[in-house]
Amino acid sequence: MVDVADPVCGPGEVLLRVRAASLCGTDNHIYHWDASIRPRIEKATGGVSRSLTIGHEFCGDVVEVGSEVRGVARQASEPIEVGDFVSAESHIVCWECYSCRRGQHHLCERDVILGVERDGGFAEYVAIPATCAWVNREPMVPEVASVLEPFGNAVHAATEYPLEDASVVIFGAGPIGLFTVVVALAEGARDVVVVDPMAFRLDLAKKVGATRCIETVALPADDAAGREAERQRVVRAIHESCADGRVDLCFEMSGHPDAIDNALRALRRGGKMIAFGLSRDNEVPFRRYSQDVVFGGITVKGIIGRKIYDTWYRTRALTAQPDVREKIQTVVTDVLPFQDWNIGFEKMARRESGKVVLRLD
Amino acid sequence: MVDVADPVCGPGEVLLRVRAASLCGTDNHIYHWDASIRPRIEKATGGVSRSLTIGHEFCGDVVEVGSEVRGVARQASEPIEVGDFVSAESHIVCWECYSCRRGQHHLCERDVILGVERDGGFAEYVAIPATCAWVNREPMVPEVASVLEPFGNAVHAATEYPLEDASVVIFGAGPIGLFTVVVALAEGARDVVVVDPMAFRLDLAKKVGATRCIETVALPADDAAGREAERQRVVRAIHESCADGRVDLCFEMSGHPDAIDNALRALRRGGKMIAFGLSRDNEVPFRRYSQDVVFGGITVKGIIGRKIYDTWYRTRALTAQPDVREKIQTVVTDVLPFQDWNIGFEKMARRESGKVVLRLD
Amino acid sequence: MVDVADPVCGPGEVLLRVRAASLCGTDNHIYHWDASIRPRIEKATGGVSRSLTIGHEFCGDVVEVGSEVRGVARQASEPIEVGDFVSAESHIVCWECYSCRRGQHHLCERDVILGVERDGGFAEYVAIPATCAWVNREPMVPEVASVLEPFGNAVHAATEYPLEDASVVIFGAGPIGLFTVVVALAEGARDVVVVDPMAFRLDLAKKVGATRCIETVALPADDAAGREAERQRVVRAIHESCADGRVDLCFEMSGHPDAIDNALRALRRGGKMIAFGLSRDNEVPFRRYSQDVVFGGITVKGIIGRKIYDTWYRTRALTAQPDVREKIQTVVTDVLPFQDWNIGFEKMARRESGKVVLRLD
Amino acid sequence: MVDVADPVCGPGEVLLRVRAASLCGTDNHIYHWDASIRPRIEKATGGVSRSLTIGHEFCGDVVEVGSEVRGVARQASEPIEVGDFVSAESHIVCWECYSCRRGQHHLCERDVILGVERDGGFAEYVAIPATCAWVNREPMVPEVASVLEPFGNAVHAATEYPLEDASVVIFGAGPIGLFTVVVALAEGARDVVVVDPMAFRLDLAKKVGATRCIETVALPADDAAGREAERQRVVRAIHESCADGRVDLCFEMSGHPDAIDNALRALRRGGKMIAFGLSRDNEVPFRRYSQDVVFGGITVKGIIGRKIYDTWYRTRALTAQPDVREKIQTVVTDVLPFQDWNIGFEKMARRESGKVVLRLD
Repeated sequence: MVDVADPVCGPGEVLLRVRAASLCGTDNHIYHWDASIRPRIEKATGGVSRSLTIGHEFCGDVVEVGSEVRGVARQASEPIEVGDFVSAESHIVCWECYSCRRGQHHLCERDVILGVERDGGFAEYVAIPATCAWVNREPMVPEVASVLEPFGNAVHAATEYPLEDASVVIFGAGPIGLFTVVVALAEGARDVVVVDPMAFRLDLAKKVGATRCIETVALPADDAAGREAERQRVVRAIHESCADGRVDLCFEMSGHPDAIDNALRALRRGGKMIAFGLSRDNEVPFRRYSQDVVFGGITVKGIIGRKIYDTWYRTRALTAQPDVREKIQTVVTDVLPFQDWNIGFEKMARRESGKVVLRLD
Repeated sequence: MVDVADPVCGPGEVLLRVRAASLCGTDNHIYHWDASIRPRIEKATGGVSRSLTIGHEFCGDVVEVGSEVRGVARQASEPIEVGDFVSAESHIVCWECYSCRRGQHHLCERDVILGVERDGGFAEYVAIPATCAWVNREPMVPEVASVLEPFGNAVHAATEYPLEDASVVIFGAGPIGLFTVVVALAEGARDVVVVDPMAFRLDLAKKVGATRCIETVALPADDAAGREAERQRVVRAIHESCADGRVDLCFEMSGHPDAIDNALRALRRGGKMIAFGLSRDNEVPFRRYSQDVVFGGITVKGIIGRKIYDTWYRTRALTAQPDVREKIQTVVTDVLPFQDWNIGFEKMARRESGKVVLRLD
Repeated sequence: MVDVADPVCGPGEVLLRVRAASLCGTDNHIYHWDASIRPRIEKATGGVSRSLTIGHEFCGDVVEVGSEVRGVARQASEPIEVGDFVSAESHIVCWECYSCRRGQHHLCERDVILGVERDGGFAEYVAIPATCAWVNREPMVPEVASVLEPFGNAVHAATEYPLEDASVVIFGAGPIGLFTVVVALAEGARDVVVVDPMAFRLDLAKKVGATRCIETVALPADDAAGREAERQRVVRAIHESCADGRVDLCFEMSGHPDAIDNALRALRRGGKMIAFGLSRDNEVPFRRYSQDVVFGGITVKGIIGRKIYDTWYRTRALTAQPDVREKIQTVVTDVLPFQDWNIGFEKMARRESGKVVLRLD
Repeated sequence: MVDVADPVCGPGEVLLRVRAASLCGTDNHIYHWDASIRPRIEKATGGVSRSLTIGHEFCGDVVEVGSEVRGVARQASEPIEVGDFVSAESHIVCWECYSCRRGQHHLCERDVILGVERDGGFAEYVAIPATCAWVNREPMVPEVASVLEPFGNAVHAATEYPLEDASVVIFGAGPIGLFTVVVALAEGARDVVVVDPMAFRLDLAKKVGATRCIETVALPADDAAGREAERQRVVRAIHESCADGRVDLCFEMSGHPDAIDNALRALRRGGKMIAFGLSRDNEVPFRRYSQDVVFGGITVKGIIGRKIYDTWYRTRALTAQPDVREKIQTVVTDVLPFQDWNIGFEKMARRESGKVVLRLD
């Protein structure tokens, strides 16, 4: 923890007094200065000569509004004023590239990420572009408002295809997998099955409403027969958990090749798999490509970030429901004072937590 | 060639006098009694005790209309009468299963395929359900009408996502890949690049309008460095062939793992890959799953059959254009009298043909 | 009440023992032999020489399954068996016309309506095509199951455009307007405002969750200034009831010209109006066509019937929620024994009821 | 014609040397200082104390790029440089209001229109926001580039619903109606019928490819029987001109109540009407609202402006076709030197022209 100069609020920006910030796996990689993230940060900071305030999941109160941010206009929907309580969208997009011009800002070719390539929210004050400030209108405790960014990942993933009457399987019960349970149920999914190797996480899944939890068993890489038997057991358990044995939608939030394989096997013809989890190895075998993907008429869709602003409007509709806010709070297993940030990172490393939030107020 | 009893026209069926039938890879597998297709046919015919007339791409004239087929009604769009010239949809769907009830008849859970599980079109007469008879209205020679079934595969594949102003790459220049060139151009694609190892086929692609053809070089499986260099060369050539180096849509019609890999590498963020080609091995490695599919926000969509009847209406709109009919005829490289069917199969085996059509009239 | 011969179950039909049937405005028109409905029935029955059993909203137990109805198939989604408890889709569609072939069965050019053009459900037994039998899986009392047909109208109307985070106004608090309140809330609407002249109905709207009720005042046709003032008052009250004064979606369920006018005035730019209510006079003035419809970029969409079967699947997802079933029961204000049908019609005529259901079991 | 100070290029703007500008009905209203347009301009200019350069349809060469406009980036799609030849989007949108945040910039709540509320293109130089500058890549003569704004209206209108295999009727053969003929044909419409009272315009419609032209006869307002007979004649002629007598899509570009009525009568069940024409009187009677709109399941959709930037991308795809560019030039009946602007306005007033373009280079 160090003293840094108070950030300056640019003409198109707002200055926030941070109230809460939550830990993400990416922060953990930065904290441990992992090879996977180092180049991106070094490039952004111009080497290690300059420090960077990390943290891209946070909320705070507006204490200053830049001179070129439009004022309150009757009719205009999202004027920002001093005193507003906002959650931050972490991606600063360029609004000019091909993706942005086609309404796919989450795929911006020149995006800059708060807390990764520019100072973020693990600080008392942070300046962010007004376009990244989402005004919360619902009564919301800071630990909920600070996790709307990852919750928005789940909203984006879960609203890509219709959920009404759908049988859904979620592979991976980390925070975003758990949020996906919450969203899928709120949007009318019929069966919500969660598959994960850890009992602690499956317990959380049950608490937020999963209709069935399936615990997987890790087997040594060289036990081919055992692993195939395990795969068959898992797919059978999935089918038995869904009405008519029909799986409409799989959310792959773990990045594990076996999970990807199980997802494709379990899906009905015409089903969809959301690819969100990053695999440890870049290469992933699609074991039954012709059989499952082609003959099955299956769709695999990669999802990153949040749609700007469709996902945020949908997030608002969801968090307007007290029940949804309560479940988000259930996923937040640890709320710590800001100075205990290192305790938070340790809990995360042991994977004995849902989401960890640091409070500053 | 054998004499078979004339088929009987069931109450919901129409009887066709076949005018032309075309050869498909599946027919070739059956002709050679390949292990890949044998079980399905043996199951359908109850062992080899009963012969089956193959052929699932054909057209003919209606010579009898079943008693329960609805007559001509003012307003009704598709009445069928004796004398109509029809192309056959090869999939007989159940109209009752979940897929059918949700409008996804091409994914019917109980479909029966003409010429595979029931007598098909390599015969003078064939009885088909009235729901499989598509009345051709446009002036059309039999060799064009007989290939509307595989042309419909291309229409289905190519109309899944918008093509206007799109830069498109097609991997595999077999008949359906070539038809995809025709459809993509007719629907407003900007760049249509074709990638294939065979010069003969790339020549055909050029003839039907491909804006750029890229010939690939096959390298021994153990030359890892050479293959990676070849992959980079192909992707670079693709990018140079497309406006802004941006590829919106890849059609994977070859089933070759290198083509699948190149397609995913070449696509822009948010791009789409249509998976139509069946790979020789069921397993296919996605070499850069996290990087391309997840971070790229890419969609991979398996396509089979034709949408009933959306694809057929779109096919009609396309074949109403003389230019499209002419190009379809270009893809039909060989028109043979029916008795020369074995010559046709041989040409196909040597891959020195586009589409081979047998004429009966 | 007369004795009629037991209906015969055709090969593609199922025979139901009716458990409940509900009264619809159309039944009322037939009961009073109104000029509006007479021609259609006389045409269907071949004059008055033959009696017709009316009733198109009903549910019952399957007591016989026709010989050509497919049996139970593993995988197939909707097998029907003796003992199943089904609700009836009232429209028998042809599956062959242009509308049906494009997946718009609710706009079938040759549809036949149960209880209007063919014997319906105000009887102990009724035979219906198996394609009209929707198997209820959720625990459901007969008075709820019997109103799924009109509830499906609301589902169809309310699921045409997204409801999440939407501010919605419903004009007309008859049974279908009330069902629309239920659906809109269940699908995530933010504000659900109901506008109606009758306090009794607005009370029901409040009971099923309307966030605001606005009572309109009827003024003499020649009081132009008064009517304009009333219109302005209503639109102002609507805007004050919606977040940001923004109305996304209006459901016009009354057919009243003033309601149509108010709906178009109230909508935000790009808003949508569902046109479901039939106006007494066929002609309706669009008072501010250029200003509201063209400059406003507004969409007006007529809705009839239910999508086959998308609406029914969505209905199932909704009625799986106990809260939704309870609210449907709230809209059913009167459950009478079958022999008291005339009491039911009288209640309906006085408009002092929500939905009236007759029980037969 | 007066001398005005050269406009200054703001930091987010580009300065154009105008090459051509075309006349629009709105310019005509301003030229005659009509009551309909006066208030909007007086409000924008702060009374008449300040002059305004009108003209909102124009093209020109970039001669200066503002300091904050992003430079050329590899990958970025639309960098702007001095020397680029651009067409102008006339609507300056706020990017911040609810409509803009939902991707509906054409319905921006705070839009400012070039040539109406801010200096436009009837001048040698004009400064416009970089976001309004669309770089033309296709070889295009100035008279074509200058009309892409109204052509974009037609593109927006015609691409709202699918056109493939559609039977289309266009009411009103002014420039935008004529452009709609061009777009509908290029996008695969089957029948394109044009209805208008003026033979001169119907001749132009024929020239750009209309498959059938129907000339309407104006009858005195008090000849009710004659007008009804005329309506029936027109609808009958429309049905006879379309395959199966089925009309999928009507474009109402005239604003005439009889045209609106004929459009709704002519449409098939489930058909769509695009409402683009402004009626002289704001009130328009929907003569058969219940019968056509509700029972017909018809959609009426108001269209204004162009989608930013979807319409422009689609416009690019269309104008890449030489045939489309040629037809646009056919609709431009008059190309005059800039100083003859008054001759142009006179031609327009007599309605003896398609589009009138003024050249400055």
